[in-house]
Amino acid sequence: MDALLLFLELMGIFAFAVSGSLLAARKKFDLVGSLLLASLAGLGGGVTRDVMIAQGLPVALANPLLLLPVLMAVTLVAARLLHENRLRRTMLVFDAMGLSLFCLTGTVVAFEAGLNPVACALLGLTTAVGGGTLRDVVANEVPQIMVPVGIYAMPAMLGAGLAVLFLELGVFNVWIGVGISSLVFAVRMLSLR
Amino acid sequence: MDALLLFLELMGIFAFAVSGSLLAARKKFDLVGSLLLASLAGLGGGVTRDVMIAQGLPVALANPLLLLPVLMAVTLVAARLLHENRLRRTMLVFDAMGLSLFCLTGTVVAFEAGLNPVACALLGLTTAVGGGTLRDVVANEVPQIMVPVGIYAMPAMLGAGLAVLFLELGVFNVWIGVGISSLVFAVRMLSLR
Amino acid sequence: MDALLLFLELMGIFAFAVSGSLLAARKKFDLVGSLLLASLAGLGGGVTRDVMIAQGLPVALANPLLLLPVLMAVTLVAARLLHENRLRRTMLVFDAMGLSLFCLTGTVVAFEAGLNPVACALLGLTTAVGGGTLRDVVANEVPQIMVPVGIYAMPAMLGAGLAVLFLELGVFNVWIGVGISSLVFAVRMLSLR
Repeated sequence: MDALLLFLELMGIFAFAVSGSLLAARKKFDLVGSLLLASLAGLGGGVTRDVMIAQGLPVALANPLLLLPVLMAVTLVAARLLHENRLRRTMLVFDAMGLSLFCLTGTVVAFEAGLNPVACALLGLTTAVGGGTLRDVVANEVPQIMVPVGIYAMPAMLGAGLAVLFLELGVFNVWIGVGISSLVFAVRMLSLR
Repeated sequence: MDALLLFLELMGIFAFAVSGSLLAARKKFDLVGSLLLASLAGLGGGVTRDVMIAQGLPVALANPLLLLPVLMAVTLVAARLLHENRLRRTMLVFDAMGLSLFCLTGTVVAFEAGLNPVACALLGLTTAVGGGTLRDVVANEVPQIMVPVGIYAMPAMLGAGLAVLFLELGVFNVWIGVGISSLVFAVRMLSLR
Repeated sequence: MDALLLFLELMGIFAFAVSGSLLAARKKFDLVGSLLLASLAGLGGGVTRDVMIAQGLPVALANPLLLLPVLMAVTLVAARLLHENRLRRTMLVFDAMGLSLFCLTGTVVAFEAGLNPVACALLGLTTAVGGGTLRDVVANEVPQIMVPVGIYAMPAMLGAGLAVLFLELGVFNVWIGVGISSLVFAVRMLSLR
């Protein structure tokens, strides 16, 4: 299960890092700005979670593997293989994937650290929306979570809440995780129609 | 005394959370924005303090009771039982209460964690002004502490400094705490006349 | 060597704190704003690094000596002994000194905490550019690292990378440190011509 958790984290990091690099492109920032916003968007939520859990080094520092999806995202955007106009819909899909993955992985990480259920759900939500908020604040924009298209934080709250429920009941497994993530993804995407 | 400290913290959290929800209302953010700004304003100062003290989970995560005043504040503002026009004066009173309570509780928490006097005073100040600063930064506003009406940070510095003085002298007690907090509150309110 | 590291830190803190106080002056903030921006610029990068390393109290809290250069910078700017118009060039020199010192000290501190090479370089970079970014974000400006005059982050990346290389090879010493710092400083200054 830890390998699966890592895989889902990497997917989520990539999805959010792309959103950071695209924001940097829109604001005409250079490669450094792209790297910074991609890192904040992709890794910021998880680092904030790990700093609050206070059990040693944030995963993003302990495991350099987590930097790979950030570098990939920056490269793809710099090479214009991903850009906003053509792929706006695709990007919303990526962002929704990040959201649905991080509200799950964040909650599970907090649960495995032995936190109380309320704290687990809060940290799941923080992981899901923290990176995007840091991205927007550092880019000097009103955070997207404040002025969302469709509903944004609600699906993540739902996902974190469901995850902590099943974890506390002791019946959480891979399939339930996949189900919760798919539900969050579906609710987010439907709200965009 | 720990029960008193907890009670004062809850009061301060409520006071600042109301300021966050009112800012969200002024900026036309939705319920999620209200929750986020109320949480940042009410809990952000204490979480920043606890992350720096680095002695385990922030109190706001360890004790879900601290979330209650945030939810109350969001509910009261959403139900329009508290709104800015009618209660601007009342809100300044709440904010001054938060300031006077947090500069005291922040200093005491740092002292009990065994920090040096300068660090205790700094963390008292951080607890008092950190939440409001996070609130304003995430809402993409110039932080109020930078462009204050009346004097804002000075009374909090005074309160944190006095608290650490009495703590170091070993003569700090409930009445001295109440006295310091009342002094900070009075100085802040007088500066608004 | 630890005394040298401390001395270099103090120099870097002073250089960045001056940049914070000058920004406060330009934005017409009062003394409190000057103190806050000087603290964020001078100490923010190191505190962020220490919070992520998660091995106890940030140095800026553990050792009150680190507050002295901040107070000096605020005083010099308040007394108008340093101001922007006359000393713009001088200030760019100070800022470049801060950058070249912090990318080195940040990397060394992370290495001494036992982190992996990638994390050491990342934290060196974070220490170098984190304070300035916090300064600009709290002042509600687009961070300078996003819209730099000349090249800014690249020399810091180079310095952190070289430092970690020599540290890993076990051949790092004072002269190599001075050499790296001088190289970063030179690259930064040349990019401003």
